[in-house]
Amino acid sequence: MRDVYVAGIGITSFTRLEYPLAEIAAFPSMLAMQDSGLTDIEQVYVANMGGPRVNHQTALASAVVDSLSLTPAGAAAIENGPASGSAAIKEGFLAVASGMHDIVLVTGAERMREVNNLEATDFIATLTHPLAEYIYGVTLPSHAAMFTRLYMEQYGVTERHLAMVSVKNQNNAMLNEFAHLHQPITIEGILDSPEAMTNNPYIAEPLRFFDACPVSDGGAAVILVSEKVAKSIDRPLIKLAGIGQATDSHAVHERENPTDLLAVRRAAELSFGMAGLEPSDVDVAELHDAFTILEIAESEEVGFFPKGEGHIALEKGETALDGRLPINPSGGLKGKGHPVGATGVGQAHEIVHQLRGEAGERQVADAKVGFTCNFGGFGNNVICLTFVRED
Amino acid sequence: MRDVYVAGIGITSFTRLEYPLAEIAAFPSMLAMQDSGLTDIEQVYVANMGGPRVNHQTALASAVVDSLSLTPAGAAAIENGPASGSAAIKEGFLAVASGMHDIVLVTGAERMREVNNLEATDFIATLTHPLAEYIYGVTLPSHAAMFTRLYMEQYGVTERHLAMVSVKNQNNAMLNEFAHLHQPITIEGILDSPEAMTNNPYIAEPLRFFDACPVSDGGAAVILVSEKVAKSIDRPLIKLAGIGQATDSHAVHERENPTDLLAVRRAAELSFGMAGLEPSDVDVAELHDAFTILEIAESEEVGFFPKGEGHIALEKGETALDGRLPINPSGGLKGKGHPVGATGVGQAHEIVHQLRGEAGERQVADAKVGFTCNFGGFGNNVICLTFVRED
Repeated sequence: MRDVYVAGIGITSFTRLEYPLAEIAAFPSMLAMQDSGLTDIEQVYVANMGGPRVNHQTALASAVVDSLSLTPAGAAAIENGPASGSAAIKEGFLAVASGMHDIVLVTGAERMREVNNLEATDFIATLTHPLAEYIYGVTLPSHAAMFTRLYMEQYGVTERHLAMVSVKNQNNAMLNEFAHLHQPITIEGILDSPEAMTNNPYIAEPLRFFDACPVSDGGAAVILVSEKVAKSIDRPLIKLAGIGQATDSHAVHERENPTDLLAVRRAAELSFGMAGLEPSDVDVAELHDAFTILEIAESEEVGFFPKGEGHIALEKGETALDGRLPINPSGGLKGKGHPVGATGVGQAHEIVHQLRGEAGERQVADAKVGFTCNFGGFGNNVICLTFVRED
Repeated sequence: MRDVYVAGIGITSFTRLEYPLAEIAAFPSMLAMQDSGLTDIEQVYVANMGGPRVNHQTALASAVVDSLSLTPAGAAAIENGPASGSAAIKEGFLAVASGMHDIVLVTGAERMREVNNLEATDFIATLTHPLAEYIYGVTLPSHAAMFTRLYMEQYGVTERHLAMVSVKNQNNAMLNEFAHLHQPITIEGILDSPEAMTNNPYIAEPLRFFDACPVSDGGAAVILVSEKVAKSIDRPLIKLAGIGQATDSHAVHERENPTDLLAVRRAAELSFGMAGLEPSDVDVAELHDAFTILEIAESEEVGFFPKGEGHIALEKGETALDGRLPINPSGGLKGKGHPVGATGVGQAHEIVHQLRGEAGERQVADAKVGFTCNFGGFGNNVICLTFVRED
């Protein structure tokens, strides 16, 4: 298996965008091509969840190729719900690792502005089990709320811990010009003040408004290349050193202990194993905090902290920007935004940015090893990536 | 790059199915596992077009893994319109060829019965250019009709030639127990008799009812494995020897000559080049006859016949089941059916069936090299596969 490197990255603002879906995928792709200096793309992967339903557009990948004037490059669209982005990166990796292609573009895009929040919530819920969950009205916020309640009972997590995730990530997003939310928040403002229940009402108890990520439009792209190509261009050598992908049972109630995210655990083990690294080697991580509880739970399952102790590390500031292991310096899904299909690619963008030392005010010092966890379904579809700066 | 073999195949009837979408993907997968004797699947690819829109279901791939009790195998869904099936086979190939996985399941499924014909036509049209075609009411039948008219003017194809494709393929389907249409037809009945205009009215002149494939539900699956695994089981050695994928401009009017299907031409060249074979080496082929004209045009573009002479070869019977190069012995999309996302996998199923010598009454004698062309968009998204029997 050949080694695979990230030669270029690009991103749009995660916000509300006017452009058609294919252009939201194309724009960061052009930036990634400029970043790498490479334009002779051989294969394109497009990660997207909502095109066929929300945007009334299918076969997006070949449309993006045309939009970028990359014909006759091959192309495929990947739809793995919120984990589409990293799933597409896996396919890009395989295309290069196999030796079939030397220069591959992976882009993710979502345009959710065409639906209102109610429709968006329904659409995202189509990733739940159709017969055991969806038809009974289960949504992602309700899944996350039940999961949070169990986590509180089993591990002593409180609403204050959830608010700490929210405050940390939304304030990190203040340092990210591409982030969706640029609104500084405090524990006082969202939890302790008399206005807190108005500012931050319950949306699905015990989850409040600020525990959920926004619904964003946006795109992000990476260019994956062979070692030979990577060494021929003047960019830092960032290796995609580990990939782990795993599934869990679709219906959450079928899991022996619903607070054990077995697919996260396994995907991380596979990713670290492939890279020959341990969780303790990681300098910076982007975890999938669609809901605040998920950052805490994932930080345990990927091996950063013992099970049930993620909230304690958070409390101690270990995951803050100046902590021992900064998590979600970009702002995460919570602050940076969650353009569903683009999210996993956006996570990779941030890690490469960090490993290159280009992250400005939110730069994590001496970051050499970065890690992402992209979480689809309610944990039934997970990809973890490990990136290493080599030079 | 490691060699990749087809270890197992499975298929449902292409018809109207009662089962939920995930089960339509799972059922042929179980048959393919039984066929190969392999159950320790490491990675799953699911080809599907309509899940998010027609069936209100997303993230299908991990759902299928759970349905098959294959957790924690990794999984991804591929949506390339009608070319989704072969695009997924390409990803399965890369997963094995790279060395990352040894046993990979590729399954395709579609359940269109939830929409009526008008909605189905609109849904399929979402693969056209959203700003240059779709909003003006262009559909796939209208694209195919305009293409046919140009082909008639440039190359002398007549309605009789189109009817010959229809009669050939629909009668081949009579020999395929899994085919959608089991209704023998004749040139007399659909073109020459007084009843022909009633039996076979124009749907988009010059195309008639029998020039279009039916809208089907159905699923098909293949298991792709490394050489070592292939040689460890008691199945004929069928190598996936060539893969070519190519795109063309999205809006058909932007092509210099709209009757030149450049993506088909290039995908076939790449596929044959990789396999080290020529079009003349092919013993049996499945081409993407969603409309009768496409079989004629593709038979030229892939290199079986000179440009503009496909209809002459057809007229001479060269592509008949007992001809020099049988095309669509399964019945093709026209007779076997077109469950959109499953079609490319269904083509591969037929070719493996033929190369194994298991095709019964429709067996092509001494078939050693088989070829498929899976055509997405209106020719902007094409994958050609070359299969070789080795033992």
